[in-house]
Amino acid sequence: MRSEMDYSKKKLDEEKVFKDPVHRYIHVRDQMIWDLIGTKEFQRLRRVRQLGTTFLTFHGGEHSRFSHSLGVYEIVRRIVDDVFDGRPEWNKEERLLSLCAALLHDVGHGPFSHSFEKVFDLDHEQFTREIILGDTEIHQVLSRGGSDFPEKVAEVIAKTYHNKLVISLISSQIDADRMDYLQRDAYFTGVSYGHFDMERILRVMRPREDQVVFKYSGMHAVEDYIMSRYQMYWQIYFHPVTRSAEVVLTKILHRAKELYRNGYSFKQDPVHFYSLFQGDITLEDYLKLDESIILYYFQIWQEEEDPILKDLANRFVNRNLFKYIEFDPAKEYKKYSELESLFRKAGINPDYYLVLDSSSDLPYDFYRPGEEEERLPIHLLMRNGELRELSRESDIVDAISGKRRTDHKLYYPADFLKDDRSKPSIKRKIREILDI
Amino acid sequence: MRSEMDYSKKKLDEEKVFKDPVHRYIHVRDQMIWDLIGTKEFQRLRRVRQLGTTFLTFHGGEHSRFSHSLGVYEIVRRIVDDVFDGRPEWNKEERLLSLCAALLHDVGHGPFSHSFEKVFDLDHEQFTREIILGDTEIHQVLSRGGSDFPEKVAEVIAKTYHNKLVISLISSQIDADRMDYLQRDAYFTGVSYGHFDMERILRVMRPREDQVVFKYSGMHAVEDYIMSRYQMYWQIYFHPVTRSAEVVLTKILHRAKELYRNGYSFKQDPVHFYSLFQGDITLEDYLKLDESIILYYFQIWQEEEDPILKDLANRFVNRNLFKYIEFDPAKEYKKYSELESLFRKAGINPDYYLVLDSSSDLPYDFYRPGEEEERLPIHLLMRNGELRELSRESDIVDAISGKRRTDHKLYYPADFLKDDRSKPSIKRKIREILDI
Amino acid sequence: MRSEMDYSKKKLDEEKVFKDPVHRYIHVRDQMIWDLIGTKEFQRLRRVRQLGTTFLTFHGGEHSRFSHSLGVYEIVRRIVDDVFDGRPEWNKEERLLSLCAALLHDVGHGPFSHSFEKVFDLDHEQFTREIILGDTEIHQVLSRGGSDFPEKVAEVIAKTYHNKLVISLISSQIDADRMDYLQRDAYFTGVSYGHFDMERILRVMRPREDQVVFKYSGMHAVEDYIMSRYQMYWQIYFHPVTRSAEVVLTKILHRAKELYRNGYSFKQDPVHFYSLFQGDITLEDYLKLDESIILYYFQIWQEEEDPILKDLANRFVNRNLFKYIEFDPAKEYKKYSELESLFRKAGINPDYYLVLDSSSDLPYDFYRPGEEEERLPIHLLMRNGELRELSRESDIVDAISGKRRTDHKLYYPADFLKDDRSKPSIKRKIREILDI
Amino acid sequence: MRSEMDYSKKKLDEEKVFKDPVHRYIHVRDQMIWDLIGTKEFQRLRRVRQLGTTFLTFHGGEHSRFSHSLGVYEIVRRIVDDVFDGRPEWNKEERLLSLCAALLHDVGHGPFSHSFEKVFDLDHEQFTREIILGDTEIHQVLSRGGSDFPEKVAEVIAKTYHNKLVISLISSQIDADRMDYLQRDAYFTGVSYGHFDMERILRVMRPREDQVVFKYSGMHAVEDYIMSRYQMYWQIYFHPVTRSAEVVLTKILHRAKELYRNGYSFKQDPVHFYSLFQGDITLEDYLKLDESIILYYFQIWQEEEDPILKDLANRFVNRNLFKYIEFDPAKEYKKYSELESLFRKAGINPDYYLVLDSSSDLPYDFYRPGEEEERLPIHLLMRNGELRELSRESDIVDAISGKRRTDHKLYYPADFLKDDRSKPSIKRKIREILDI
Repeated sequence: MRSEMDYSKKKLDEEKVFKDPVHRYIHVRDQMIWDLIGTKEFQRLRRVRQLGTTFLTFHGGEHSRFSHSLGVYEIVRRIVDDVFDGRPEWNKEERLLSLCAALLHDVGHGPFSHSFEKVFDLDHEQFTREIILGDTEIHQVLSRGGSDFPEKVAEVIAKTYHNKLVISLISSQIDADRMDYLQRDAYFTGVSYGHFDMERILRVMRPREDQVVFKYSGMHAVEDYIMSRYQMYWQIYFHPVTRSAEVVLTKILHRAKELYRNGYSFKQDPVHFYSLFQGDITLEDYLKLDESIILYYFQIWQEEEDPILKDLANRFVNRNLFKYIEFDPAKEYKKYSELESLFRKAGINPDYYLVLDSSSDLPYDFYRPGEEEERLPIHLLMRNGELRELSRESDIVDAISGKRRTDHKLYYPADFLKDDRSKPSIKRKIREILDI
Repeated sequence: MRSEMDYSKKKLDEEKVFKDPVHRYIHVRDQMIWDLIGTKEFQRLRRVRQLGTTFLTFHGGEHSRFSHSLGVYEIVRRIVDDVFDGRPEWNKEERLLSLCAALLHDVGHGPFSHSFEKVFDLDHEQFTREIILGDTEIHQVLSRGGSDFPEKVAEVIAKTYHNKLVISLISSQIDADRMDYLQRDAYFTGVSYGHFDMERILRVMRPREDQVVFKYSGMHAVEDYIMSRYQMYWQIYFHPVTRSAEVVLTKILHRAKELYRNGYSFKQDPVHFYSLFQGDITLEDYLKLDESIILYYFQIWQEEEDPILKDLANRFVNRNLFKYIEFDPAKEYKKYSELESLFRKAGINPDYYLVLDSSSDLPYDFYRPGEEEERLPIHLLMRNGELRELSRESDIVDAISGKRRTDHKLYYPADFLKDDRSKPSIKRKIREILDI
Repeated sequence: MRSEMDYSKKKLDEEKVFKDPVHRYIHVRDQMIWDLIGTKEFQRLRRVRQLGTTFLTFHGGEHSRFSHSLGVYEIVRRIVDDVFDGRPEWNKEERLLSLCAALLHDVGHGPFSHSFEKVFDLDHEQFTREIILGDTEIHQVLSRGGSDFPEKVAEVIAKTYHNKLVISLISSQIDADRMDYLQRDAYFTGVSYGHFDMERILRVMRPREDQVVFKYSGMHAVEDYIMSRYQMYWQIYFHPVTRSAEVVLTKILHRAKELYRNGYSFKQDPVHFYSLFQGDITLEDYLKLDESIILYYFQIWQEEEDPILKDLANRFVNRNLFKYIEFDPAKEYKKYSELESLFRKAGINPDYYLVLDSSSDLPYDFYRPGEEEERLPIHLLMRNGELRELSRESDIVDAISGKRRTDHKLYYPADFLKDDRSKPSIKRKIREILDI
Repeated sequence: MRSEMDYSKKKLDEEKVFKDPVHRYIHVRDQMIWDLIGTKEFQRLRRVRQLGTTFLTFHGGEHSRFSHSLGVYEIVRRIVDDVFDGRPEWNKEERLLSLCAALLHDVGHGPFSHSFEKVFDLDHEQFTREIILGDTEIHQVLSRGGSDFPEKVAEVIAKTYHNKLVISLISSQIDADRMDYLQRDAYFTGVSYGHFDMERILRVMRPREDQVVFKYSGMHAVEDYIMSRYQMYWQIYFHPVTRSAEVVLTKILHRAKELYRNGYSFKQDPVHFYSLFQGDITLEDYLKLDESIILYYFQIWQEEEDPILKDLANRFVNRNLFKYIEFDPAKEYKKYSELESLFRKAGINPDYYLVLDSSSDLPYDFYRPGEEEERLPIHLLMRNGELRELSRESDIVDAISGKRRTDHKLYYPADFLKDDRSKPSIKRKIREILDI
C-alpha cells in the first residue's frame, strides 16, 4: 500500500527533458511517466508513423506517433500544472491520471491503422485497453500506482471515466490531442496551416464540473484553431495523393488476405500476417506489428508470383500510385458500372484497380443529443459567468458548424490504361470516359 | 542523337513543386530531374533515415535521405539559376549535370550506413557509382541525356570531374550538401544550432575557374556557418546517446556475422544478409536493403536462441542502450584490460559489452597539400580581386582551424552490472572502477 | 527622349538588398527604384508608424510605413518578375510602372492618418497624388522615366489607370498591399494570426485582361488569407485599447483646433498646426508633419493652461487611456443622453470624455455593381478555364461574405469617475449606469 | 509598516500579459511590477529606440527600450520563479528586488544615448539612479515596498548591492539584459544571428554565493550565445552605416552647442536643449527628452541659417549620410593631416565633415583583477562540483577571449567631394587620396 502511494508521488532527482521542435522541450518530473516512456510498448510507437502514407505526398511528414504522444502529454502537463493547479474545480489527485492517459492515448495504434482496421476489422481502441490492462510492461508500471490505476487510465481513454473534465483534456473538439497533432503535422510537412495561438488557448482554459471551458476573451484564438483544423483536414489529411497511397495499400492487404484464404503459396511465409488473415490476432502478435514489418513484406511481395499482389506492392514501395478523377457516386453510378465492365474486358481487375474513395469531415459540431456520432460542443465562459456554445458567438464557426463536407474520387492506374500494347480500343474507350 | 539533346533541354509543361519545411518549396522544371525522382532507386531513399540512430536521442530526427537529397538539389538549383547564371566563369552547359549530381550524391547510401560500412567493409560511394552506371532506372534516365552523361555525373560525385567548380558545389568545406543537412537536421531535431544566413551566403558566391569563392562582405555569414557546423557536430552528430545506439547496432551486426560464419542456425534464414556476411554483395542485393528490412530482422532476432544476439537486438529495438563514461585510451589502457578481464569473470562478453568509441572532428581546415585527408580551403574574394584563405581573415575560424577534437567514451550495459543476482563481488569491483 | 528611355531601363551595377524580417531580403535592381527610396518624401515614411496607436496595445508594433512600402514593392516585384514574366496577358512595359506604384502607394500618409483625416478633413490619397505630380524629389525621379510617367503612377494608385490588371496588383481584395501588412503587422506585434502561404498564392496567380485571378488549386491558401485578414482586423486593428488611444488622440486634436478657433493663446505657437486648423494646408506644410512633430506638441501641451488639452495630452503621452464598455447605440441612446447629462453635472465635459466609437469590417465581398463601396471580387481560375467567384466555391468565405460586422464601445475616463473628492453622488450614479 | 509588506506581496487578481514577439508573452503577477510599468517615466521608454540610429541601416530595427525592458524583466522572472525557486542558495526575499532592477535597469536612457552622453558629458546610469531615488512616480511606487527598497534597487543596477548573485542576473557577461537584446535585436532587424538556445541556458543556470554559474552540460549553448554576441556586434551594432548616422548626429549636436555658445540666434529657441548646452541639466528637464523631441528639432534645424547645422540636420533627417573608407590612425595620421588641410582649402570644415570613428569590442574576457574594465568571467559548474572558467573549457571562447578587436573608419560627405562646381582641383586631389 504504502509504496504504491510513494511511487505515484515519486519525482525524478532531476527533471528530464526531450528536445521537441513543436514545444521546444518536453518536461518530465514524475517517475511513472519516465518509466512508461521506457516500456517497449511505448517505444514501439517510434516505428509507427503519425501520418501513415502522408510522407508519400509531403516528404517531411515522416514523424512517429512517439513524438506526438510526448507532445500530447506535454500539453496536458502544462494545463494541469500551469493553468488548473490551485483552482477549486480541479482535483489535484487526478493530475497523474491525466498525464498517463495523455501519454498513452494512442498506444494501441498499429502500422497504417486506418487501412489495417478496415481490412482486418481491428479496433485500435480495444488494443489500447488491452495494452493498459494486459500482460505488458506498461501495465506493470501503471499498477505500481495502485491496483485500480490501470483501469482508471483505460477508462479516461475510453471516455467512460466518471469525471468528464479529465476526459475532455484529451477527447473533445478542442483537446490536447488535436492541439498537438495540428501543430506537429504542420511543422513536419512544412505547410503554413496549423498555426494558432496555443499559448492563449491554454491561458483561457478553465476547469468546470464536466468539461474544460474557454474564457470569452480567447474566442478568436479558438476560432483560429477550428479554421486550422479545417484547413489541415483538406490540405493534408485528405490530400488525394495520400488517399491514393492508402487505396493501394488497402488493396495490397485485401489481395494478400484473399490469396491466403484461397490457399495461395507465398514464397516466404507471411507469419506476421497469419492471425490477421484468420481474424484471431492476439495482443502479443499485434505488438509485433509495426511499419518496418509491413514494409518488409511489401518489399518481398514485389517478387511474388501473383501479378496483382506483385504489382500493387511495387506501386506502393516505389510510389507509382493511382491517378484520380472527381466522381459523384450519387449521379455517376452508371458510369462506374460501365467502367467496371470495360476494365474486366481490358483484363484489369476492377476490384483492385478501380476504386472509389470518399473523405468526409465535420469540422465542428454543436450538441445533438442522442445522435450517433455525438460530439461535445465547445463552451465559452462569458464575462457574466454564463456558458455559451461557440457557434452561437462565432459567425465563422457557425458557418461550418454541423456541415459535413464530403469528397469523392475515383482511383485508377493511369499507366495500365495508357499501355496500348493490348486491348487498345477498350482502353481508348476507358480513357474517353475518364476524360484522360 | 537529336532526341537525346532534346531530352536534356526538355522542360515540364508546368513547374512542379514539393513542399519542404526547410526551403519552403523545391522547384522542378527539368524533365530529367522529375524522372530521376520517380525512379525506384531514388524512392528507396525514403526508407533510409538521414541521421541513422539519432532519432533515439532526438525524437524529431526521423527524416529521410530522400528529403535531404531534394534539398541539396534545390540549393544547387538556386546557385546555378539565380547566382551563377550569366556570369562568364560559369558554363551553362554544366547546369543539368550539377543538378543531377546534387540530387544523386547520396543515392548509394544504405541503411545505417556508418555501422554497415564498418562491419561489412562496404563503401557507399562505390554503390553510388554502380547505381549511376549500372543496370538501374536511374542509369536509363541519365543515358537519355547522352551516352557519356551518366559517367560525367558519377565523376562529379566522385570528385574526379575535370571542372572542379562543379565539384565544389556539392563537395567542399561549404557546399550545398552541408548547407542543407545542417539546416534540415536542426529543423527536424528542433535544436537552436544550425541557423545561418544561407540567403546571404548564396548571394556572395562567385564562380571561379576551379572553385566557388565568397565575396568578403559575406565573411561573417560564412563564419556563422562554420560555427553552426561545429555546434551541430558536437550537439547532434556525436551525441553520446546516439553513439551508444550505434555501438549496440554495430555489435548486433558483428554477432550475426560471427554466428553465421560459425554455422549457427537462425530461426528464420536471414537471406537479405547472406551476401553481406559472405562479403560478395551485388548491386541488386544492396538495393533491396533499407531500414525497414534491417528493423524487421532486429525484431525477429529478439527471439533468437543466441543470448547475445537476442539481448542486443532487444536493446536496440526497445531503446535499452549502453551507458558510458569518459575514457582516455592513451592513459587508461590498463584500466581497460582490467575491466575486460573482470567482464569475462562476470560472464559478460567484453567483445560485445565493453566498447570504446571515439568521435573526432576537424571543423575547418586550411590547405595542407599532400596530406591524406586533403581538404580544399574556403577562399574569400577581397575587394581588390585577390583571394584569401578564410582562416587568415577570421579569428574565430583560425581558432578552430586544423584542430582536430576527439572524444572517447567507454560504453557498457549498466543494467547487467547492477544485477547482483550473480557474481556480486566482481560486479561491485567493476562498478567501483567505472565509478558508477 | 533617348536618355529617358535609358533611365527607365537603367540597372544598378550590382543588386542592392535591404534585410527584411518578413521577406528576408528586399531586392533592388532598377536605378529608378533605388533613387525613389532615397528621396526625402519617401524617407519621411520612416517617421510614420504603420499601425498608428497600436504600439500602445502591442508594444512590438512600432514599425514604420517605410518598411511596409518596401514590402509591397518586393511582393509586386516577385509577381511580375517570377510569375507573370513571359505570359502573353502581361505587358512587360508595365513592369516598372507597377513597381513604382507599389512602392509609392502609401507615400501620402501622414502621422496617425486616421484621426488626422477625420478631424482636419484631409485625404491622404489626394496628398499621394500631389507628391507624385507636384514639386517634389519623387516627381523629379519619376519624370526621368518619361513626361507622362508620373501621371501614370498616380493613376494606378488612384485606380483610374486604363489597365485594371496593374491596379489589381496593389488594390483589390487580395493584393500586395494587404499581403504585406497582414504578415508584417503579425510579425512585429508577435501574434499568431497573419500567417498564410504567400508563396503558394503567388504561384497560383495568373494575369487576365482586367484582373489577377487565382488557379483553383490554390483556393485553400486564398481562404486562409481571408481568414487571416478577418482575425487581424478583430484582434489587432480594432483592438479596443488601440481604439481608446485613437479616441484620446482625436479628442486632443479636436480640443486644440477648438481652442485655436476661439483665440486661445498657446504657450508655444503650434506653427505646424496652423494650416491644419485653418483648413488650408499646402503640400509643403503637409510634408513637414510626421509623428515626431506631433508627439513633440503633445508633450509640450501637457503643460498648457487649458485643463482639457493638458489632461488629454497627458493621457496619450503617458498611456493613461479611457476605459470602455460595450454599447449598442440603437438600443441605448437614452442611456447615452442620461450619461451625457450626468457628466455635465459632474463637471466632466462629455464632448471630450464620453465617446462612442464604432469599428466595422466587411471581411470579403462579392460583386455588387453600382453600390457605393464597390469591391472587386476574387476570381478562381477553374481547371476548365472558367472563372468562378470565390464565395461560390468556399463555404467559409461564403459564410462571412458580404456580412458587415460592427462593434460599438463607449469610452470614458475611469479615473475621473472613481475620484469621489467632488460630486461623489453623481459619480456613483454614473458608475452604476456604466456598471463599473 | 504592515501595508508596505502587504504591497510587496500583493498579487494582481488575474495575471496580466503583454504579447511579445520574442518571449511570446510577458507575464505580470505582482502589483508593484504592474504599477511600475504604468509610470510615466517607464512609459517614456516607448519614445526611445533600443538601437538608436540602426533603423537607418536595418529598417526593421525600430523597436523601443520599452519592449526590451519588459523582455529583461521576463527573463529574470523565469529564472527566479522557474529555475532558482526552492534552491537553498537563493534567497526568495530578493525575488521582487531582482524583478524591479531588471525592469528598470535602462530607465535612465535618453534619446540616442551614445551620442548625447559623449557630446553633453551625461551619464545615463546617474539618471537611472536619480529616477529611482528622486521625485518620480517610479520612486513613489518603489517606496511602497519599504523605505529602503528604492535604494536597494538602485544599488543592484549600480552593481554595488551586497549580494552579487542578484547583480549578476542583470550585469554579467551572460545576463538577462544581453540575452534579451541579442534575441530582440535579431528578431526586429531580421538577421539570422542572435539565435541561441536560451531555454537550455536558463535550465542549466544555478545560483551560487556571488554569481550565477552554468552546469557543464550547457556549455555548448553558452558558447553559442558568446558567438551570437560576437556576430551581432560586428553585423549590427558596429555596422558602418549605423556609425555614419551616429557621426552625423553627433556633429549636429556639436554644431548646435557651439552655435549656442557663440551667441547664435536660432529661428526657434531650442528650449529643450538649453540646460544640455549649459551643462546644468536637471532630472525634470532630462525626462522631457525623447526621440520625438530631438527629431522635431532636427527637422526645424533644416531651415536654419547656419549652413553646417542646416546641412547636417538635412543629412540625418533624409538619410543622406557620410561615406567611409577603412583608415588606420596609427599608420595614416599624416594622410589625415593632409586631408584636413585640403578640406579647409576646399571650404569644407573638417571638424564636421572629416570624422574618424572607431568601434571596438571585447567579446568575452576572463578575469583580470585590478584592471580597469574588470569583467566577471563565466563559470561552468563541473560534474564534480568544481567551478571552471569558460575559456579554459571551450576552444572557441578561448580563441576570442581577451582579444579586443577594433575597426577604424574615416567618414566624409561624398556628394560634396564630387561637386566640382567649386575648387575642382582640390576636390580631385581629395578624391585621389581617398581613392574614390
